[in-house]
Formats: sequence, structure tokens, C-alpha cells
Amino acid sequence: MLLDTERGALTRALEIAGDPVVPLGPNPRVGCVLLSPAGEVLAEGRHRGAGTAHAEAAALAAARSADISVVGATAVVTLEPCSHVGRTGPCADALISAGIARVVVARRDPNPVAAGGIERLRAAGIEVELGIDEDLAAAAAALNRGWEHGLQHARPLVTAKIALTLDGRAAAADGTSQWITGPAAREEVHLLRTTCDAVLVGTGTARTDHPTLTARRSDGTLHPRQPLRAVMGTGTAPSLPAVDGAGEELRLLTHDPSAALETLFERGVRHVLVEGGPVVTGAFLRAGLVDELIVHLAPTLLGAGRPAVEDLSIATLADRLDLDLVEVAPLPSSGGPTDLRITLRPRPRTA
Amino acid sequence: MLLDTERGALTRALEIAGDPVVPLGPNPRVGCVLLSPAGEVLAEGRHRGAGTAHAEAAALAAARSADISVVGATAVVTLEPCSHVGRTGPCADALISAGIARVVVARRDPNPVAAGGIERLRAAGIEVELGIDEDLAAAAAALNRGWEHGLQHARPLVTAKIALTLDGRAAAADGTSQWITGPAAREEVHLLRTTCDAVLVGTGTARTDHPTLTARRSDGTLHPRQPLRAVMGTGTAPSLPAVDGAGEELRLLTHDPSAALETLFERGVRHVLVEGGPVVTGAFLRAGLVDELIVHLAPTLLGAGRPAVEDLSIATLADRLDLDLVEVAPLPSSGGPTDLRITLRPRPRTA
Ligand SMILES: NC(=O)c1ccc[n+]([C@@H]2O[C@H](COP(=O)([O-])OP(=O)(O)OC[C@H]3O[C@@H](n4cnc5c(N)ncnc54)[C@H](OP(=O)(O)O)[C@@H]3O)[C@@H](O)[C@H]2O)c1
Ligand SMILES: NC(=O)c1ccc[n+]([C@@H]2O[C@H](COP(=O)([O-])OP(=O)(O)OC[C@H]3O[C@@H](n4cnc5c(N)ncnc54)[C@H](OP(=O)(O)O)[C@@H]3O)[C@@H](O)[C@H]2O)c1
Repeated sequence: MLLDTERGALTRALEIAGDPVVPLGPNPRVGCVLLSPAGEVLAEGRHRGAGTAHAEAAALAAARSADISVVGATAVVTLEPCSHVGRTGPCADALISAGIARVVVARRDPNPVAAGGIERLRAAGIEVELGIDEDLAAAAAALNRGWEHGLQHARPLVTAKIALTLDGRAAAADGTSQWITGPAAREEVHLLRTTCDAVLVGTGTARTDHPTLTARRSDGTLHPRQPLRAVMGTGTAPSLPAVDGAGEELRLLTHDPSAALETLFERGVRHVLVEGGPVVTGAFLRAGLVDELIVHLAPTLLGAGRPAVEDLSIATLADRLDLDLVEVAPLPSSGGPTDLRITLRPRPRTA
Repeated sequence: MLLDTERGALTRALEIAGDPVVPLGPNPRVGCVLLSPAGEVLAEGRHRGAGTAHAEAAALAAARSADISVVGATAVVTLEPCSHVGRTGPCADALISAGIARVVVARRDPNPVAAGGIERLRAAGIEVELGIDEDLAAAAAALNRGWEHGLQHARPLVTAKIALTLDGRAAAADGTSQWITGPAAREEVHLLRTTCDAVLVGTGTARTDHPTLTARRSDGTLHPRQPLRAVMGTGTAPSLPAVDGAGEELRLLTHDPSAALETLFERGVRHVLVEGGPVVTGAFLRAGLVDELIVHLAPTLLGAGRPAVEDLSIATLADRLDLDLVEVAPLPSSGGPTDLRITLRPRPRTA
């Protein structure tokens, strides 16, 4: 059980770890807050990506440079302190030699190379607390979703997002498709983009929509963290619009979703947002390479026009691609139609 | 404000009024419970359709035949007592001359010919209470939805129901469509059928699916109240399967939804469930003749196949048919995919 002060410290540690100034990519986001035995905050630190200090080391260094003693203190960390000697020494050892008395760990390290920190701390007589509230545990899990997925599956986590009408259309008969969904759904997509390492569209969408694929606020300004902008396909497609501060553009000259993910993974991408169009989304779904599908469903009917998902090679109902419902929620609307956000997880296919 | 005993009596009055043994059609369903000043139930009565006693008269008669005095009693009624002399005398007068002291009315009579009962009661010195809890008011409104709609619009209330996949398909590429949704959604459709006067499908669906259009329980037995079974279209179509106890079959030889509704209205139908297929549902939507759309959305993708709604004559996104979201709810599932029920109301079109 956590003390109230520790709960507050963990919330803060999650906040500084997930701050958008911290890059995504192949390193986990980690935060650490040091508390005095009385529960006052002594120092905090976070990991800022490859080659920089780990969160625990950063927090200890901050205390040291402010001449604050951490002997007998509690370290609240979002991820199990590492026990391996990487570019930095093992954090478990740093905590031990600093005289830390208690460590609150929000999440075990799924990386077999790094794990073992908890055992190391306990062997040194430090009290390690792992029992945290559900919501904090969920936030700690969400913080490094893509990174953890990469460790387990050696490919990026794939979220596909589609916007469609009640009758499954992604565009009207004449091709018009902006905007099927309302402002709240569009704003959500921009937030989603800033939590992903890369956004991917097909050459068809690049040709038709000229999307900037940036993560913007509703006032048009850019979020601090911008995804890599990937365009997939072998034909010609114009460059994406040049936008100051936008993520790098990457052309994936393939039709194979698996090959595309491999290239992205090598580039450090751990979470990709596939934003269509219908052909590309269909290809990822058909390949079983969508981990999460977010549907923005507009309560509107068109009765004709481009379907939102194409060519899943399904001929008969029995071969359908079933998904598990994770959540359904109406999005805020002011007078306009109320879009739904439906989050789903494709079921593994037994083909 | 109602007393607890009155609240209980109203719940009971709604229950007996809405009992499936009571026919739907062009007469309202009404229930009446008589309470002693101490709050005991003295008698109850309900209207059983054209030519039968009104609920108040039935309750008074029940008390009389059991030799129970109703002087000083409270009458709890689901609908304003009528003040006109129809096939039966005005109920307001019957309550007055019986010596009723207080009347709880769940809903005003929207029928201008019948209304005025409340004023008549008050003029006779009877206390009339109209302030009832929201959920009871909603139940009283729902009880006679179709009947009230008929009074106001001189046509039946139209509920359209469609079952589709996340990508808007009503059938797979090879035509297979049974079953897109799971058991809970299908059971709901049967419950819906028993609350409607008529179910309507196009000749296409009659030809392809041979639907019985009966209202069945999950064990296959028929609900006590069966809808009229209407098939719309000018071509040939087989008779619907003959089922013992099923509603009468009616062929509507037209493509005009408005004409179809007129015929049904003349036959006493006040609430129609349009169950497809895509062409017929599209025709009703295009004509602006759908009052409520119930979508059973299966969390499944097909990527090809028959769309669920066809031919709305919409060419460009700006002409889309917007709907207001009334409710979205996941349906119970046991292991299978979780279908969503989305209830919507088409927005009036400004064409
Ligand atoms: N509602 C939504 O959520 C949404 C989202 C995005 C786009 N859209 C709409 O979708 C339309 C564009 O549709 P689209 O399907 O042409 O776009 P797309 O899926 O972005 O692009 C399709 C193209 O990508 C290439 N490609 C990449 N991987 C492929 C594969 N595995 N199989 C086949 N082709 C592959 C092919 O072109 P190459 O010849 O270059 O290989 C193909 O023609 C636009 O109208 C856009 O507005 C809607
Ligand atoms: N998913 C669902 O919710 C659902 C529900 C029902 C059916 N279905 C599927 O839908 C398929 C049948 O589709 P469908 O579109 O052929 O069925 P439909 O809509 O039941 O019937 C279409 C036929 O109805 C007649 N019709 C009536 N009013 C019309 C109008 N205003 N305009 C044009 N025609 C009119 C026409 O035939 P005439 O020549 O006779 O005039 C037309 O061919 C089946 O596969 C069935 O399983 C799905």
C-alpha cells in the first residue's frame, strides 16, 4: 500500500516522464521522485532518451547538486530500476549506495536484460513496494506501450484509425471526405499523433488529401512532439506538404505491411498510427498487423461512396474479421452530430 | 408530489396497461388503479382496445362488483381521463360521480377531442396531481408512442432497424448475412417486433431470406402479441412462411413509402418497424419518413459485400443525412463479439 504522499509522487513521476518534450522511440519514458521520510519532495528526475541519464540517476544527481541528503529517503519510480550496466551504471546500485530506504515501483521492466532490479534492491535490504492503485498502474503501462510491445514482438505497436459514417463510408460518391467527423474527433487524432512515433498513410491518401500529418492543437499550432511521417506504396506520390517543425518524411517503397513495420522498427519507431486510406488499412488488417483499431463513427448516412476499409479478401460471412470491443464513447459536440469513438482489438485469426 | 403508495400504483397501472395481451393499434393503452385513502389497492382496470371499457370505467366496475366503496379514493391513471362522450361516457364524469377525491395523471391526452378531463375534474373540486417522477413519465410516454405520433402526424411512427458490420456491410460478398449480429441483438429485434403494430420488409428480403417476421422468444415460442407482416414492392415475391399464430400478411404494391404508410395507418397501424433490406430502408430514409433508427453494429469487418443502406441519392458529403445520437449501448455477449445498439433520430433535412 502506498502512502498518500507516495501516490502524489507517483502521479508526478508519470507526468514528468510522459511530458511531450521527452522523445518517444526505442527508449522507455521513466520518471523518479525522491521523498524524505516525512513525505516531502527532495528531488525529481526523468529519462530523456538514448544516451542520457536514467531517471533515478537524474534524480540522485539533482539532490546531490542541491546538497540534499537522500539517506533514508523513498524513491518513487514509474519503472523497475535497471540492474544491468548499459551506457549508465545499474540504477538499482545507485539507489542502494545513495542510502535509499524504500522504493515504490509502478511497473516491472519487461526487458529481460534490464530486469532484476527489484531483487537486487531487496537483497540489499531495501523495502520495495509494488502494490499501487489500478489507475496509476494503467497509466504506467500506457506510458511505454509501444516500447513494451517492441520488446515482446520485435515490431512496432500498430494503431489503425478510421473515420467513417454509420453506413461505413469514408468518402461520398464524388470523393469528398473532409470532414466526415467533427472537431472533437479531429482534435483526438492530433493528440493520438503526438503519442505515436510515426504516422503512416498510403500513396493514395498522399495524392488525394495532401495531408500534413502533423500533430496540431485546435488553434493550428504544432504539439511539441511530432511523429515521423511515413507514406507507403510503390507508385509516385507528391511529397507531403512542407511544414516547419513537422516530423521527418519517410517513403516506404513496399506493399508489404510487415516489411514496412520492419523498416520503421529499425528506425526506432515503436508505435505507428496507420491513418488509411482504405487500401492500406485493409492491408494491415488482412495481415493481422493491427493491434488496436480506433473508429470514429459519424452519425451520418451517405448511401453511396468509398467504403472505409477495402479488400480484406473475405468472401463469406464465416470468414469475417471479428474484433473485441474495448470501449465506446460519444465525443463532445457543440450542436453538431455526436461522433462515437469505438476502440477495438482484432481477434487473432485462426486461419 | 406522489405518495409512495401512488408511485407503486402508477407502476402497476403502467404494467397492466402495457401487458402484451392488450392489443396495439389505434387505441391508447391505459391503466387505472384505485387506492383507498390509506393507500390500499381497491381495484384496477385497463383498456383492452376499441369497443371495450376505458380503464377508469373498468376499475370502477371492478370495485362495484366486489362491493368496494371508492368514495374518497384516489384514482391513479396512466393517461388523462377523457372528457368526451365516445362509445363510452366521459371517464372524468364517471370518476366525479363515483366520489373519487384525488386523481394522479401520468400523462396529458394529446388528442384534442378527448382532452379537457383534468379541467373537468378540477372544476368538480377533485385534486389532480400531474407531478410525477421522470422515469414514470417516460414510461407513460413510451406506452403510447405510436398512438400519440398518429394523432399528431396522421401517419404511423416509423422505426427502422439495420444490422451491419463496422464497415457498413449488411451481407458478405457472397450474400451470406445470417447472422451478422449475435443472439442478444436478435432477441432485441423480437422484443421490438412485439411492441410494433407492423413489421415491413421489401420484396427483395422476402425473396432472399424468407423471414417469418414473427416475434419470438429465444426458445422459439411466439410472444403473445404479433405484428402485421408487410411486404413492400411491385414485383413477385413468395408468401412469407406460414407460422401458426403469426400476424396477418399484407402486400403493399408500391415503391412509395408515404403510400405504404397511408395504407398501414388506415389499417390501424400506429408503429411500423422497417427491417430492410437496404433498398427499402434507403427509400424510407430518403423520403424523410424514418423517425427512429436502431443500428445493431457488429464489431466485425468484411471489407466487401452488400452495403446496409442503399441509394439515398446523396452525391457529395455536404448533402449527407445527419442523425442525432439518442443512445449507444453495448449488448450483452457471452464470449462472442459485443454488438453495439446505436439509437438515432434523423435530423429534419433542409432541402
Ligand atoms: N475516412 C478515413 O479514415 C480516411 C483516411 C485516409 C484516407 N481516406 C480517403 O481515402 C481515399 C484514398 O484511398 P486509397 O485507398 O487510394 O488510399 P491509400 O490506402 O492511402 O493508398 C492506396 C495506395 O497505396 C499503395 N499501397 C500501399 N500498400 C498497399 C498494399 N498493401 N496493397 C495495395 N496498395 C498499396 C498503392 O499505391 P502504389 O501504386 O503507390 O503502390 C495503393 O494504390 C481518399 O479519398 C482519402 O480521403 C479516408
Ligand atoms: N442487415 C440488415 O439489417 C438486413 C435487413 C434486411 C435484409 N437484409 C439483406 O438485404 C438483402 C435484400 O436486399 P434488397 O435491397 O433487395 O431488399 P429489399 O429492400 O427488402 O427489397 C428491395 C425490393 O423492394 C422493392 N421496393 C420496395 N420499395 C421500393 C422502393 N422505394 N424503391 C425500389 N424498390 C423498392 C423492389 O422490388 P419490386 O420489384 O418487388 O418492386 C426492390 O427490388 C438480403 O440479402 C437480406 O439478407 C439485411
